[in-house]
Amino acid sequence: MGCKVSKVRMWLEKRSPAQIITGYYLLAVMISILLFSLPQVYKPKVELSFFDKVFMAVSVVTDTGMTIFNISETYSVFGYFIIMLVLQFGGIGIMAMSTFFWLLLGHKIGLKQRRLIMIDNNQFALSGLVRLVRDILKMIIFIELFGGIILGFHFLNYYPDWKEAFLQGLFSSVCATTNAGMDITGESYVPFANDYFVQLITIIQIIIGAIGFPVLIEVKEYLSRKKIKGEYRFRFSLFTKVTTATYGILLVIGTILIFLLEFQHYFKDVPWHKTFFYAFFQSATTRSTGFTTMDITDFSTPTLLVMSILMFIGGSPNSMGGGIRTTTLALNLLFIYNFAKGKREVKVFNRELHQYDIMKSLAITLLAIVMCAVSVIAISFSDSQQQLIAIFLEVCSAFGTVGLSMGITPELSVFAKCILMVLMFIGRIGLTSVFLIIGGEGNKDVNYRYPKERVITG
Amino acid sequence: MGCKVSKVRMWLEKRSPAQIITGYYLLAVMISILLFSLPQVYKPKVELSFFDKVFMAVSVVTDTGMTIFNISETYSVFGYFIIMLVLQFGGIGIMAMSTFFWLLLGHKIGLKQRRLIMIDNNQFALSGLVRLVRDILKMIIFIELFGGIILGFHFLNYYPDWKEAFLQGLFSSVCATTNAGMDITGESYVPFANDYFVQLITIIQIIIGAIGFPVLIEVKEYLSRKKIKGEYRFRFSLFTKVTTATYGILLVIGTILIFLLEFQHYFKDVPWHKTFFYAFFQSATTRSTGFTTMDITDFSTPTLLVMSILMFIGGSPNSMGGGIRTTTLALNLLFIYNFAKGKREVKVFNRELHQYDIMKSLAITLLAIVMCAVSVIAISFSDSQQQLIAIFLEVCSAFGTVGLSMGITPELSVFAKCILMVLMFIGRIGLTSVFLIIGGEGNKDVNYRYPKERVITG
Ligand SMILES: [K+]
Ligand SMILES: [K+]
Repeated sequence: MGCKVSKVRMWLEKRSPAQIITGYYLLAVMISILLFSLPQVYKPKVELSFFDKVFMAVSVVTDTGMTIFNISETYSVFGYFIIMLVLQFGGIGIMAMSTFFWLLLGHKIGLKQRRLIMIDNNQFALSGLVRLVRDILKMIIFIELFGGIILGFHFLNYYPDWKEAFLQGLFSSVCATTNAGMDITGESYVPFANDYFVQLITIIQIIIGAIGFPVLIEVKEYLSRKKIKGEYRFRFSLFTKVTTATYGILLVIGTILIFLLEFQHYFKDVPWHKTFFYAFFQSATTRSTGFTTMDITDFSTPTLLVMSILMFIGGSPNSMGGGIRTTTLALNLLFIYNFAKGKREVKVFNRELHQYDIMKSLAITLLAIVMCAVSVIAISFSDSQQQLIAIFLEVCSAFGTVGLSMGITPELSVFAKCILMVLMFIGRIGLTSVFLIIGGEGNKDVNYRYPKERVITG
Repeated sequence: MGCKVSKVRMWLEKRSPAQIITGYYLLAVMISILLFSLPQVYKPKVELSFFDKVFMAVSVVTDTGMTIFNISETYSVFGYFIIMLVLQFGGIGIMAMSTFFWLLLGHKIGLKQRRLIMIDNNQFALSGLVRLVRDILKMIIFIELFGGIILGFHFLNYYPDWKEAFLQGLFSSVCATTNAGMDITGESYVPFANDYFVQLITIIQIIIGAIGFPVLIEVKEYLSRKKIKGEYRFRFSLFTKVTTATYGILLVIGTILIFLLEFQHYFKDVPWHKTFFYAFFQSATTRSTGFTTMDITDFSTPTLLVMSILMFIGGSPNSMGGGIRTTTLALNLLFIYNFAKGKREVKVFNRELHQYDIMKSLAITLLAIVMCAVSVIAISFSDSQQQLIAIFLEVCSAFGTVGLSMGITPELSVFAKCILMVLMFIGRIGLTSVFLIIGGEGNKDVNYRYPKERVITG
């Protein structure tokens, strides 16, 4: 037995980090499929095909929450808890989780293992990784439970049965924090369209999930260090500044665009505060979560296009979100701006960006565009009865692990669903990992011409 | 008078080449508007608004050929000749033309003027530019006239009146060679759907127009030098190799994709040779010209998406085509491929590409995608009754200066038409010029780390 373990360990040592991470994600998909094969997971008399179970497993483990049937009509209460468990796989990160179990079993964390987490979380410093994993786990689980209790009490207004209220509260809390966007209300957040308290709590949880773990860790360090040493001047990393600024700017731009595009259409005759919450909630949720307080099929085409692009961009790196990631977008735009001005170096927040990171962000964006374009063409061929905008939204939604849909998911062909599964998987592990799998660790011949500071992309 | 001329010359000397080129193109648009304001240009009783005249002027001068009314019903024979004249502005290049007039008037061509042509034609060597301009002019005019005569004789089969036959022949020949894709048949190339001779002649002319002037010049040099010196080994430039290979590969891929996507749809029950010519002709014409032998609105969505992408890519640099250009695509794909393999240097045809050219190609592609995406969203907002695929095709068609349309151009709002005009203009002058206008000649701080050989993009 011990011999077998060491053989496995030796085998693992020979693999590249990106290969192992992808392997772990695949393993997590397998485990999810097994869990979703348990008959207790479903309500009595519900019969699902094996393919549907696989699709749901991928959708849940990647935190996408794209569904092919109403969850509250299909799954048992036991099933709800299985979903919430599987959501942790994708949300907290399989790497972090496996490291946690490693620690739990008394193993010392080695350099190889540290490097694995490093890639998964895109961190460059090796120190403090064990603490990072523990902090991530504690923080997320605390937020999920605490949010669940708050929402549970509040949901007593909606559900007279306290069990139902707290189940709804916990499920909403978990799905908001992990940015899964699934619901057991049967109609997403439409019942809470006028409940700004629920929406605000949810937006806060969504942002915590989508802003990225490193940002949360740094904020925590900032708050605690300030108290201990009065003299100590804490500096946020360039990554945190870039990703938070981009996240915030996109949140505002999304709100404004949805407001302007639907002002004379969907929002006609709606009071201003409700219009604002509609637009703001939709902007926040479209980035990675996929909740809705209204029927998005009633939106006009330009709004749906803007939402698709927001989904394509996705959340921050090392977050519950998918897509190309916020920093990738930021580096792309900074590069174009500087290139147009005739400059090759890109500076931001008084720091110079590393040339390699810019190249990586450009490669990620272009590959993602090609991948999504090919997917749209393929699905519009295989499922020719569907509207182009619905297919485009669906593809961006899968790649961004958002899960929003104009309702076509259940009608799609097996071929189209397979494409969506691949997109969800790649969206979740990120194109950085895909590049590393294809090329191995190509960083070795990186030329450190600008040894300033690095920024995470993809 | 002489004083005035020298003042103009002094003023010109102070401007950057990209500014002057854009200025010349704007001037050409003005002249076109003036020419299209002549009442003799139109058939009797035809009344057009000023805005329509401006739109047509931009469409013709940029060699796009996007029309808002049937040309044969609107323009007089004099009008046809005005159209053919204006097409030369965009086709041969306003810069080349102005240099030609400069030479014609007995002026010596100075370094400044040489530099202007250099930018317009993306050439890096200063020598031989005067000859280049002359060769371009002679070659194009010869091909236009020669093709017109051949087609004129052939068209005697269609039009009993020899004047009509030769007018049709000349107009087709000019519109094929300049890649304008306009027609006075009233229904594009549909009358010649079974006439493979006309289609082959047209494809040859289209390729000559879209393959790029430098390629033609090099081929000419290759053919002539071989005869003079038996020992001399002519080497085609890296640019010629990359652009020709990309052009050819895209032509084949386009044919195969159109064939496969419409095999069970549009081409059902069509004989194989006609299917082949449909697909091949459409693939060739979609890249920059815009002729059709069939009604493209009958195509399925995936085919229209593939065609839109082909139009977005466009023709070769320094050609009659628009879009991001073939080499830009090639450099993007080579970059992604090499990046995925962990390499930063990009090698092709036993040469190493310059880092700056790769950066430029990435910047051009991303900016073009952003520009077209914003255009699609804006038009889908202003003209919400139009289908998304029709708008997408229209935007790519304008940016690629192709002129294909699902027939929505006349119905579009003034706002949408203004967007299309901007896209046609930018597509024609190329994003390289746009970058140069914004940033001036940013090349000055280029780091020649890889002093190998440069490739033209955008
Ligand atoms: K989601
Ligand atoms: K054209």
